Amino acid sequence: MEEDSKALIELRREFHRLAEPGWMEYRTTEHLIKALQDDRILLHYGKEIYAGERLGLPTKEEKERYSSGLHLAIEKAEEVLEGYTGAIAVVETGKEGPTIGFRFDIDALPLKESTDEDHLPHRLHFESDHLGAMHACGHDGHMAIGIMFTKWLAQHAKQLKGKFIVVFQPAEEGVRGANALVNGKWLEQVDYFFGMHIGMGLASGKICVGTEDILATEKIDAIFTGKSAHAGAHPEEGRNAILAAASAVLGLHSLPQDANGLARINVGKIEGGSGRNIVANHAQLALEIRGSNERVMEDLKAGVKRILEGAAIQYGCHLESSCKGRAEAWYDKDKLFHDQLTIFLQNKGYALSDFSMKGSEDVALFLNRVQEHGGKAMHFMLGSDLKAAHHQEAFDFNEEDLITGLDLFKDLVRFLMTNPIGNK
Amino acid sequence: MEEDSKALIELRREFHRLAEPGWMEYRTTEHLIKALQDDRILLHYGKEIYAGERLGLPTKEEKERYSSGLHLAIEKAEEVLEGYTGAIAVVETGKEGPTIGFRFDIDALPLKESTDEDHLPHRLHFESDHLGAMHACGHDGHMAIGIMFTKWLAQHAKQLKGKFIVVFQPAEEGVRGANALVNGKWLEQVDYFFGMHIGMGLASGKICVGTEDILATEKIDAIFTGKSAHAGAHPEEGRNAILAAASAVLGLHSLPQDANGLARINVGKIEGGSGRNIVANHAQLALEIRGSNERVMEDLKAGVKRILEGAAIQYGCHLESSCKGRAEAWYDKDKLFHDQLTIFLQNKGYALSDFSMKGSEDVALFLNRVQEHGGKAMHFMLGSDLKAAHHQEAFDFNEEDLITGLDLFKDLVRFLMTNPIGNK
Amino acid sequence: MEEDSKALIELRREFHRLAEPGWMEYRTTEHLIKALQDDRILLHYGKEIYAGERLGLPTKEEKERYSSGLHLAIEKAEEVLEGYTGAIAVVETGKEGPTIGFRFDIDALPLKESTDEDHLPHRLHFESDHLGAMHACGHDGHMAIGIMFTKWLAQHAKQLKGKFIVVFQPAEEGVRGANALVNGKWLEQVDYFFGMHIGMGLASGKICVGTEDILATEKIDAIFTGKSAHAGAHPEEGRNAILAAASAVLGLHSLPQDANGLARINVGKIEGGSGRNIVANHAQLALEIRGSNERVMEDLKAGVKRILEGAAIQYGCHLESSCKGRAEAWYDKDKLFHDQLTIFLQNKGYALSDFSMKGSEDVALFLNRVQEHGGKAMHFMLGSDLKAAHHQEAFDFNEEDLITGLDLFKDLVRFLMTNPIGNK
Amino acid sequence: MEEDSKALIELRREFHRLAEPGWMEYRTTEHLIKALQDDRILLHYGKEIYAGERLGLPTKEEKERYSSGLHLAIEKAEEVLEGYTGAIAVVETGKEGPTIGFRFDIDALPLKESTDEDHLPHRLHFESDHLGAMHACGHDGHMAIGIMFTKWLAQHAKQLKGKFIVVFQPAEEGVRGANALVNGKWLEQVDYFFGMHIGMGLASGKICVGTEDILATEKIDAIFTGKSAHAGAHPEEGRNAILAAASAVLGLHSLPQDANGLARINVGKIEGGSGRNIVANHAQLALEIRGSNERVMEDLKAGVKRILEGAAIQYGCHLESSCKGRAEAWYDKDKLFHDQLTIFLQNKGYALSDFSMKGSEDVALFLNRVQEHGGKAMHFMLGSDLKAAHHQEAFDFNEEDLITGLDLFKDLVRFLMTNPIGNK
Repeated sequence: MEEDSKALIELRREFHRLAEPGWMEYRTTEHLIKALQDDRILLHYGKEIYAGERLGLPTKEEKERYSSGLHLAIEKAEEVLEGYTGAIAVVETGKEGPTIGFRFDIDALPLKESTDEDHLPHRLHFESDHLGAMHACGHDGHMAIGIMFTKWLAQHAKQLKGKFIVVFQPAEEGVRGANALVNGKWLEQVDYFFGMHIGMGLASGKICVGTEDILATEKIDAIFTGKSAHAGAHPEEGRNAILAAASAVLGLHSLPQDANGLARINVGKIEGGSGRNIVANHAQLALEIRGSNERVMEDLKAGVKRILEGAAIQYGCHLESSCKGRAEAWYDKDKLFHDQLTIFLQNKGYALSDFSMKGSEDVALFLNRVQEHGGKAMHFMLGSDLKAAHHQEAFDFNEEDLITGLDLFKDLVRFLMTNPIGNK
Repeated sequence: MEEDSKALIELRREFHRLAEPGWMEYRTTEHLIKALQDDRILLHYGKEIYAGERLGLPTKEEKERYSSGLHLAIEKAEEVLEGYTGAIAVVETGKEGPTIGFRFDIDALPLKESTDEDHLPHRLHFESDHLGAMHACGHDGHMAIGIMFTKWLAQHAKQLKGKFIVVFQPAEEGVRGANALVNGKWLEQVDYFFGMHIGMGLASGKICVGTEDILATEKIDAIFTGKSAHAGAHPEEGRNAILAAASAVLGLHSLPQDANGLARINVGKIEGGSGRNIVANHAQLALEIRGSNERVMEDLKAGVKRILEGAAIQYGCHLESSCKGRAEAWYDKDKLFHDQLTIFLQNKGYALSDFSMKGSEDVALFLNRVQEHGGKAMHFMLGSDLKAAHHQEAFDFNEEDLITGLDLFKDLVRFLMTNPIGNK
Repeated sequence: MEEDSKALIELRREFHRLAEPGWMEYRTTEHLIKALQDDRILLHYGKEIYAGERLGLPTKEEKERYSSGLHLAIEKAEEVLEGYTGAIAVVETGKEGPTIGFRFDIDALPLKESTDEDHLPHRLHFESDHLGAMHACGHDGHMAIGIMFTKWLAQHAKQLKGKFIVVFQPAEEGVRGANALVNGKWLEQVDYFFGMHIGMGLASGKICVGTEDILATEKIDAIFTGKSAHAGAHPEEGRNAILAAASAVLGLHSLPQDANGLARINVGKIEGGSGRNIVANHAQLALEIRGSNERVMEDLKAGVKRILEGAAIQYGCHLESSCKGRAEAWYDKDKLFHDQLTIFLQNKGYALSDFSMKGSEDVALFLNRVQEHGGKAMHFMLGSDLKAAHHQEAFDFNEEDLITGLDLFKDLVRFLMTNPIGNK
Repeated sequence: MEEDSKALIELRREFHRLAEPGWMEYRTTEHLIKALQDDRILLHYGKEIYAGERLGLPTKEEKERYSSGLHLAIEKAEEVLEGYTGAIAVVETGKEGPTIGFRFDIDALPLKESTDEDHLPHRLHFESDHLGAMHACGHDGHMAIGIMFTKWLAQHAKQLKGKFIVVFQPAEEGVRGANALVNGKWLEQVDYFFGMHIGMGLASGKICVGTEDILATEKIDAIFTGKSAHAGAHPEEGRNAILAAASAVLGLHSLPQDANGLARINVGKIEGGSGRNIVANHAQLALEIRGSNERVMEDLKAGVKRILEGAAIQYGCHLESSCKGRAEAWYDKDKLFHDQLTIFLQNKGYALSDFSMKGSEDVALFLNRVQEHGGKAMHFMLGSDLKAAHHQEAFDFNEEDLITGLDLFKDLVRFLMTNPIGNK
């Protein structure tokens, strides 16, 4: 136990150092693959694991920043360097039994890490190698658990039955990655699927079974292209993209009143124009919508389309809008499964707690696909006291909590070995 | 002279009493026709004088308010009561000579007249018969001059040559009437055409030859139709026409920056919705654009179209927009004619003055059509000290100035009898 | 029973005919008072029952329309004609026991009633006397039940104990009336309070105990006063109130995103300007906000204030905003009372059903005041199949359902006579 | 002549290479000072020539970009490196006579220069040393003329009389520099002042005496600071700066309708927010207003203030707005001086032409100050065929036209030596 905790912390720090944002987890993927080298683990990666659109790909400049001069000592280095990052590890027991899936996310955030002495990664010198990229959401910890857990599965394959699929998913930030993986054949065979996140405000020592209010979301970029003109000499020749964007911003924020559920919209970024004396021929918005169910999402998407198109027409601009990320709502609706797990974990001594997220997580796509196919799925929150909130430069969780996450996954497997619930 | 002035004042007061807004000058037309009964005057009226769309017709309710119970003792009473108001009086001398046209407008405004003791029409009991309609722009005075002048033409037909066409035009307010009359065959034969307006800020005793800055204009109504819904229970089912109107209002007011000339826009009226707890399914705007030339007008019209259509799309509404009035810009560009008239009138002792209007007048359609056909045209401003500005309930001009207007027209005729300028 | 039903229908039709909108229930009040004449009923009305602001009073013109030539054959006719309408009937048993309050609302809507042959009031000639006013929300039925019930209380006073207070509240539409009555001493003594509404989508035969989602609301009028100017000649002299209103409309609709609960806003009416060629010096908005709790309401109110004030400043206008109606949220939070009533009514054979309103009702002020003082309160929905939705010109409920409402109130009294729950 | 032209071209190319944007003309100033070293030229520079606010200073990052590692071999290197750039050269003849001032601007633009083979500076290897800075408005040519002209004055001082002041002004782009220099004592003594610009659409060989429509302008930055919040979890805690900016953009563009003169506004740049799931706590606008006279400018400035402040209040944001540049309108109102110069230059064989700019130039501050003090002032346009419009990456003028500019200045001096007009 003590030893496992040390190993988890060690691994977490290695990944923390490698911090790479979504679709650019080049060295992270290399490190994962090396860490999972084991005869009993079948490793899939590169293009073969992809079966859906990779949303929100980085720009050429961003990619170059992380890949330039990089040589990966793995077989499919080229595919990985094309952005087919992540991996799927499979452990087969050879015995009849349930297929059980797990998802761990692997990407970092485009954020400058704190250089404060209080910041553990800085003090202990495992801060990010990449200036401007940082594991500020705990995915480094997720990977540590995922690796240790997969190895444990391999080591205990003989005592276990059925099959285990462990997904190391890229680009969770911006809810981009799941979409590219969930349509594969992997999920069709899955009887049980588990996701987990660390922190989020839940205290160290606590576990939440069935995170509430995981909202559906769609991330949208809208670009208005007008026509530039000298603002003093010939304003009438311009088509003002900033005016179109302003009209859109106000219109978009009028959308979220919906009796069908919780609805949210946010235009979080705006940028437009080239000079103050030029009628702006360019303006763009980065926005997101969220909803507690698909009906709300349909209403919001239709509304966004109307507002953007109308704004473009108003000011004679061309509109180009694209989806940069997408996740679904997930609700812990399988009360029987919830209760069975709850009773089992309580008996095992876990301190359970309710938790409402009111945020989005693309693990929802895995959970929903499995449930749609008749499988069972659950999302857990792993409590951990934080130094600063997620996505902050001083974010840090308590490394001592990682072992609880690893134990949880082991216990879930133990439970399913002896208590097969609703197998297909 | 003294007698003429008295007769003008008498006539002006009669018309003031009859005040009827545009396209509803029923009794006004009847009175005009009776006043012009003369063997030497050929009177045209009713449908025969119309050759273009009558813009901005009143609603059924308005028409009923002015026509209900009315019997006109004229031949084409029925046509007049259908809104084919106004008349064209023709005086033929039988001798070769120029064809000279004149235009006098005849409509009142939908305005409650002042009942202040200082208000002459009230004190002398010739205020409007129609509560809510008032001659507050001097068209009563224009008609008085027009009638006396036409009669003078008839009386002096033997001493004159050529042909005289005097148009008594309805619905000048909102620049609606000229459009329905200028396409007739009347104008094709015209060599000279004159328009005139009283007041407008020019002092009593002054005459302006060639009013400056008569702007082109278009009056537009826009109706947004959305979908109503209970604002508390099902806001998402509504399509909010008030939001569409608000977006349009802001967009429209961004239009008038144009290097091609002076540009103006105004949304002067807005109305929408039925109850505060209902998502509004209806909103409408009354707006106008103005420009100093056709290029500006084209820019503005295209802009208005874009803004209105885009706003409708933004909020899922249907748009219906229609033209309710239209006038052209007129510029005193025939410098030679201007100078000839100026010299003649100065010699006659008129006190001439420059005057810029920055407003619109549909007489511009007559002036432009005649100039396009190679004729000569001029607009005059007849100075008169006002009690209150035009379109105010206490508006009143100085009746003593009417005689100057009559003299001006007589002198113009005298001038053209002896100095034929640029006849076709 | 049969007889009671007939009497209810008779009364309902009498009140339907008298239809008068809020604060103008002159003849309605007279009729109520006459109907409640009984030695055992103490009647309070006129100013004495008022202890709070009467929100959303009608204009002088509206008042004249309903009061002109009216002589009420009741003692305090003058006070009633000043708009102190409604009445409170008290039945004292003289015996110790709970004080029990009830509220029935009495106002009609400003709506033209259907003249379709299918419309029962039209076919049977009991349609509204007042063209443009109609009982289209069932308050006529409420009054019928209230009167029959009060008389029953008086008739059975000897068998009952405690005291009964029956409030006939004016101006429920626009949630205006309760505010003027709830601060009186009446409510302080109340141990139990009951409200009820007919229809709303609940089917005939059904009763809902504890209507869900009665939202708090505030009705606000905002008037922007700018400065008029000629839009062609001197636009820069104007201060455009329509632009201020447009900016406000868009801003207001951005407000309702609140994690503290359900939030709604609606600008339901807009009106501004006097003529299309005049920069508008006047524009006004009729809006409402709704929220599921006070915290949301505070957020919304603060937001509305900011948006309106800012919009006025933007366009150089003066702002005047005022509250025209106000109601609170009410939640059926006293689960014990709910369950006791539910069990009792089920045993009595009522067909109970859940019902969510997502609308507002100012009865919430009564219910909350009583609960705040330690009393018990409940709101019921009385099912009735409707011919058309509430506030529609063809609205009509099924008169056969009135008897169920009367029985419900009688049964509630019977229950409390024998099962005193939580008396103070 | 031939030689002068070669020298001009040589100098122009040297300055073209040194291209530095406003307030960072470090090497440019050094080069100017070295080029003007002459016993007969009194050189003033550094802080001593400054007597007004330096508007629109660059950021620390920008300054570092141009000054890092730079050592200027001039006496007041430190002051120049603090941004006190530019110089004033004085030539005293020692004889009584008029004081005559001239202004040449020296800054480049933040623009990446064309690397097209057709682009002369690229082909002949005199393109900008600084990637991202370029002389794309001809100020390199202005400096060449200014230096050659100053040297000529020095060489001919004995034949001349009076005093000559030649201002080499920094930061003309964005109309920032003149404001810092015009309040000095220099201008008080000036009897005549001349400004000149090359290109602008006037053809090679042409000279315009008295450029028309030099508009007043003010460059304004507005920063809205709100409050960030998680857009999914707690939108009500945010104060959305992007919404404030959007409301401001739409409001600002409604301002320019003004009967007092030509009015323009443009929000040319917008930027706001940090991430799509965060309520933006920051947004900023770069805008400009222009007007043909001070009254229009006052109207516009008051309007901008209202709109910005109101928008900030609407969305609960803090507003910080600041002036980044300022220029005045200049009109060639001294008709006598205009005519005298015109006749003289025509006689000298110059091809004169009218030219309307409808843009802004901060030389207007010099011209107006001198005229206010009773001096005489004139602005010239020096025709030159352009390869691409001003401020474009392929901008280039015809170097052969520089000699015409130099000759013009010499001739102006010759004229004033013999024809003293209206000396103080």
